[in-house]
Amino acid sequence: MTDPLRRATAADVGDILRLIRELAAYEREPDAVHATVDSLTATLFGPTPSAEALVAEVDGEVVGLALFFTNFSTWTGRAGLYLEDLYVAPHARGTGLGKALLQRLARIAVGRGCARLEWSVLDWNQPAIDFYRSLGAKAMSEWTVHRLDGAALERFAK
Amino acid sequence: MTDPLRRATAADVGDILRLIRELAAYEREPDAVHATVDSLTATLFGPTPSAEALVAEVDGEVVGLALFFTNFSTWTGRAGLYLEDLYVAPHARGTGLGKALLQRLARIAVGRGCARLEWSVLDWNQPAIDFYRSLGAKAMSEWTVHRLDGAALERFAK
Repeated sequence: MTDPLRRATAADVGDILRLIRELAAYEREPDAVHATVDSLTATLFGPTPSAEALVAEVDGEVVGLALFFTNFSTWTGRAGLYLEDLYVAPHARGTGLGKALLQRLARIAVGRGCARLEWSVLDWNQPAIDFYRSLGAKAMSEWTVHRLDGAALERFAK
Repeated sequence: MTDPLRRATAADVGDILRLIRELAAYEREPDAVHATVDSLTATLFGPTPSAEALVAEVDGEVVGLALFFTNFSTWTGRAGLYLEDLYVAPHARGTGLGKALLQRLARIAVGRGCARLEWSVLDWNQPAIDFYRSLGAKAMSEWTVHRLDGAALERFAK
C-alpha cells in the first residue's frame, strides 16, 4: 500500500483549512476559525514559516492533518514539538491514520533531538484521552494554561 | 527611576540559568533543569533562536526573568506568544516586577499582532492564579496538555 502520509505543500492549504474547520465543529466551536487560505499559506509556506503540517491522503482526497510547531522547555534546555491540531475526517477513521500521523510526528521529534512531543486534549474527549494514554503519553493534569487575548490583552498592554 | 526591565543579552545567560533553577525548586522539581549555559546561549542567542528573554535588573543584580517563544493557533490563524518561565527572586518580590514583566510581554504581543499571550500555572499555586485572573486572563481549564517524552517517545517513534 502507498504511504498515505506526506509533508503538506502549498497546494494543500485549502484542504487543510477545510479539516481545521471540521475539527473546530467537532470541538463545539464551529465559528472559532479565523484562519484563511492566505494566513495559513504565510504561516506554513511563507519566508519564515511558524508552523509545519503533515497530511494523510487516501484515494486522492486529503483526509487527515497534523499541524505542529517547535516549542522550547527551559527545564530540558531543548526544543520540543507541539501538535496544535490532529484530525482525521469521520469517513477515514478506524484505519489507523491518526496514530500514523502522531507516530510520524514522534519520529520527526526524535530525529530533531527534541525532548518532548506535546499536545492538548479537551477533557470531555475520553476516546482521545484513552488513545493517548495507550501510547504512553502523560496527562499534565497539574498544569492549567492561562490566556490573555482580545480586549483583555489590549487593555493589559496599555 | 530607571526602567528595571530590558532584553536579555548573551552576558545574562548565567543569571538566567540561576533563576530557572530557583523557579524549578519553587515548583518542587529542583533536579528537573537540564539546560546549561551552552544550550541556553544557543536557544536565545544562536543563529536561529527558538526563544527570547526579558530580564529585570535591580541594583546591578538580575532578579527577574520572562522567557518566551512564538506559538501558533490555527483557529486565530495568527502567531501568539507563549511565556515558558516567569520568575522573580524572593527578595525582589512585592515591587511589581512580575506584573511589569508580564505587561511588557503583553505589549510585545500586541506590537507583533499576536492573537494571544499564554502560559501555564501549577494548580496549587493559588496566589499566581488569583494574580493572573485579576489581569483578565482566562484559565483554559477544559484542556489538558499531554506529553510524550523520554523512553515513551523513543518507543512510539520506532
